Amino acid sequence: MKIAIVGKGGVGKTFIASTLMKLFEKDGYKVIGVDCDPNPTLALSFGVEEDITPISKRKDIIEERVVLGDGVYNINPKVDDLIDKLGYKIGNITILVMGTIEKSGEGCVCPASTLLRKLMKHLILKEKQVVILDMEAGIEHFGRKTLEGIDLMLIVVEPTKKSILTAKRIVKLAKDLGIKNIGLIVNKVRNKNIDIDIGVPIYGIIPFDEQVLEAEAKGESVDKGKAFEEIKNIYSKIVNR
Amino acid sequence: MKIAIVGKGGVGKTFIASTLMKLFEKDGYKVIGVDCDPNPTLALSFGVEEDITPISKRKDIIEERVVLGDGVYNINPKVDDLIDKLGYKIGNITILVMGTIEKSGEGCVCPASTLLRKLMKHLILKEKQVVILDMEAGIEHFGRKTLEGIDLMLIVVEPTKKSILTAKRIVKLAKDLGIKNIGLIVNKVRNKNIDIDIGVPIYGIIPFDEQVLEAEAKGESVDKGKAFEEIKNIYSKIVNR
Repeated sequence: MKIAIVGKGGVGKTFIASTLMKLFEKDGYKVIGVDCDPNPTLALSFGVEEDITPISKRKDIIEERVVLGDGVYNINPKVDDLIDKLGYKIGNITILVMGTIEKSGEGCVCPASTLLRKLMKHLILKEKQVVILDMEAGIEHFGRKTLEGIDLMLIVVEPTKKSILTAKRIVKLAKDLGIKNIGLIVNKVRNKNIDIDIGVPIYGIIPFDEQVLEAEAKGESVDKGKAFEEIKNIYSKIVNR
Repeated sequence: MKIAIVGKGGVGKTFIASTLMKLFEKDGYKVIGVDCDPNPTLALSFGVEEDITPISKRKDIIEERVVLGDGVYNINPKVDDLIDKLGYKIGNITILVMGTIEKSGEGCVCPASTLLRKLMKHLILKEKQVVILDMEAGIEHFGRKTLEGIDLMLIVVEPTKKSILTAKRIVKLAKDLGIKNIGLIVNKVRNKNIDIDIGVPIYGIIPFDEQVLEAEAKGESVDKGKAFEEIKNIYSKIVNR
């Protein structure tokens, strides 16, 4: 299963993605987490402070497998082992970083997105394997079609007009891209009587939780508390879908 | 004066940018606010719910002024009047939207960034005119050099490890780009004893304020309260710099 977590910046995508990754791992899955943000912070949720080499720097390794030479593409390349070669391993979790900006003026992350698309396209997942894509803030990745071929897109919002506007834009673009399964997660909810309808099923309503705030201050993850419990419910909905 | 507001997604860039815009206007300035986020939400802070035509859609009008034909550039084009033609006016505030993604697969916002750079490069500001650029979340715009030639860059963080990591990356990239004046704004601060040092002067420490939360839920702006008062202090620091 390939799941993408999308939404406006700061709504909690990385927090939710990393927590889901840990729940999948605990359940015996082999988990591949892909940090698709040009400003990567996913690894930080696993206590990894060092910079992970992005796949955009390993172009050679991906291209040699996918492209045979002279622009001739290998239709069915085996790329499964590349994940191990390119990723940073923590137990049964492998973290991939798409690409970042290291120098001003070096351009955008389109080349890195293209590599990631190729890798994802050719990756065949076995039983009990899951890919979770923690996307960049906003909507630019839709312009790049990075998410073609995913099984489920979860849009995260918080109860602000700006993030809901972003979610509506995302629904439109995702349908455009042919993504069929789209769900909504409302995060940081203080008032239970919240009413947000963007025309997609709600996967969870995560309450505002001081514990998350404290954990984010330290760059840690949470494994208890009311926000965590609701992410567990979301996890069940995903696997029983 | 050209001021850019940068930082991780969700830290409060648009809230701070729009509040500063209103303070400049109140002080008699002609204000140009540029929404440089591919997922634009700046206009919403002024109660504008309709989509504003982005300058990326008015390529003709910018190119005809800057490019003479056959790739020959007009070295000193007059572009001041273009702001009025391209912008959405609210009193003495003019809002420009850089560009957005309307269709999946249409590409990235590099062409729009290039147009904006051209426009900004040739815009000559008079006394009591200010441009405030509300940047996209994260660091990708540094790859595009959108911010060349600005007078002041204000980095917004909240007290989370991820946003501080982002700020550190920004400082490095901004120096790379030759930006000399960089300041830090710490937002949503609950604990006054906060200690954040990323090697640039602190322009303000904005306390967490329930009023802002409520305003953001409705898509409104604030004009009183403790967060607003601190932004007024930041405003004074900017104009007296």
